[in-house]
Amino acid sequence: MNAINRQVLLVEKPRGKLAPSNFRLAESVMPSCADGEALLKVRYISLDAANRAWMQGATYRSAVDAGSVMAGGSIAEVVDSKAPGFAKGDLVFADTGWQEYAALPAKQLIKVPHVEPMTHLLSVYGIAGLTAYFGLLRVGEPKAGETVVVSAAAGSVGSLVGQIAKIKGCRVIGVAGGAEKCAWLKSELGFDEAVDYKAGDLYRALKSAAPKGIDVYFDNTGGEILEACLPLMNLHGRIACCGAVSAYDGAPPAAGPRGLPGLLVVKRIRMQGFIVMDFYDQREAALADLQKWVSDGKLKVREDVIDGLENTPAALIGLLAGDNRGKRMVKVA
Amino acid sequence: MNAINRQVLLVEKPRGKLAPSNFRLAESVMPSCADGEALLKVRYISLDAANRAWMQGATYRSAVDAGSVMAGGSIAEVVDSKAPGFAKGDLVFADTGWQEYAALPAKQLIKVPHVEPMTHLLSVYGIAGLTAYFGLLRVGEPKAGETVVVSAAAGSVGSLVGQIAKIKGCRVIGVAGGAEKCAWLKSELGFDEAVDYKAGDLYRALKSAAPKGIDVYFDNTGGEILEACLPLMNLHGRIACCGAVSAYDGAPPAAGPRGLPGLLVVKRIRMQGFIVMDFYDQREAALADLQKWVSDGKLKVREDVIDGLENTPAALIGLLAGDNRGKRMVKVA
Repeated sequence: MNAINRQVLLVEKPRGKLAPSNFRLAESVMPSCADGEALLKVRYISLDAANRAWMQGATYRSAVDAGSVMAGGSIAEVVDSKAPGFAKGDLVFADTGWQEYAALPAKQLIKVPHVEPMTHLLSVYGIAGLTAYFGLLRVGEPKAGETVVVSAAAGSVGSLVGQIAKIKGCRVIGVAGGAEKCAWLKSELGFDEAVDYKAGDLYRALKSAAPKGIDVYFDNTGGEILEACLPLMNLHGRIACCGAVSAYDGAPPAAGPRGLPGLLVVKRIRMQGFIVMDFYDQREAALADLQKWVSDGKLKVREDVIDGLENTPAALIGLLAGDNRGKRMVKVA
Repeated sequence: MNAINRQVLLVEKPRGKLAPSNFRLAESVMPSCADGEALLKVRYISLDAANRAWMQGATYRSAVDAGSVMAGGSIAEVVDSKAPGFAKGDLVFADTGWQEYAALPAKQLIKVPHVEPMTHLLSVYGIAGLTAYFGLLRVGEPKAGETVVVSAAAGSVGSLVGQIAKIKGCRVIGVAGGAEKCAWLKSELGFDEAVDYKAGDLYRALKSAAPKGIDVYFDNTGGEILEACLPLMNLHGRIACCGAVSAYDGAPPAAGPRGLPGLLVVKRIRMQGFIVMDFYDQREAALADLQKWVSDGKLKVREDVIDGLENTPAALIGLLAGDNRGKRMVKVA
């Protein structure tokens, strides 16, 4: 164990698009654990569009302050412990931030099992998998035979949402950026259709891909994609609002999607925001389903692992630009 | 029975604000009823903001075509019948349109009881009352102690929503146009607070009226009032989308409310459109509740009755401008 703790600091809050200059690598002294705390060695840092939203202000968590270690969840290994219930070698999920080591109190740690590969703890068995599972099944409530559309479909959550909807007998349309990603959604993940939002005329493309209308829209993006889906929603359709990545990186949007709330009334649509913590009490049953689908080969898990703490800022900037396929994370150690 | 049937025709679809010139009084021959039909004498025509929405295109019903009798629901009396189950003297609710007489097939008629005053069949025991009841209780799902905000609070639906929320033990804030209406909401209908949206700085006024945030927002307006409520919604708040009167009269709005869908995610808000027909199977139980509250003096019913078929266009134009308090209708006969 070296005596240095490398960290990535958020130097200043981005005013426009997130840039490498918003971050700075720093070295700090190794933390040690006080009573009730565990010392954690960070193994894999999770990268999520939500990281960018945290820089804009308080969301479901407090805002990230300029000058501090950038916040972020990770899978970490307990290397020293004065916390009851946590022993050396245990794996935990925690908001360690972007650094090599962190000392955190026991109540901020979620113990996770050792699984192979460990990266699955950040993808299908982590927040991404549970978000896809609960958001689709508990908020979207798709029925077999219905049409499900998911945006950011090649991303960590979207790629799982589409596959789970297929498992449930739905017709699935993914919206993603670029022909290559769209081809991959169909050939590798079994989506029925994929629509490239960068190709223009999104509304017409969606209408043609969803001739029977949309019953469930799993919204990761907000903005133009939400606006294009709204008039295509069927009576009593459901929109599961998972995120609004279109609004995270840059100035806040001047206006919301057209047609709200009028179309919700006419079509009696339910539009509902959620975050994964809302369903924490149902976590075990969800994980059991996910594990079975993975072991049966029904759920393919795509991961995008980038090496080295120093590459974390670039990895997040790339994720916001849509560079990743599946769950992006950084291997720290 | 005279041999003439006076009618109000929609001459042309309004391009901007609805104007008297969009309508024309006409005389037609008295209809007579074919087999399976009843001949109806229109007593009271219901005026609703939705009348204006129907002119824009298909909604939950087909659009009103230019050159035809203006559509609208009314309470009518059966004066001749070749329809099984309907006899002379029966009262029905039906989409007779704006005219003195109509012959309609039995399946388009809803028989209603004789009540005193008959006008209550269009207000508290009609679509307005049931819309308030189901929208608030089944879509908004308020709990005692929660804060409920309702827009168009002095209107037919809003004035009942606020009172029902009070009956259920909520703190109630009405949004209406003008100091006089606001004073009336508090002094006559027992609202806890009333906010005048014409007085400016709506967000700040609402924030001050709802210091503990908003749990249920019953939205009759969309637009700026919805936009002002959104950031004040509490975690797991509910928005019952009943109408969007702000968007009906004039050009369609260029954009939707800011903060959507981002705020729905952060606050885990449910925003749900509904129309009263969705709850038709629960109608009897709802009417029983409404009747009890009226007879116990807990629910005050305000009606705004205008005399004469020829005044129907002006009455609707005035309703869209917010002239009415409570349920506006036209007495035809």
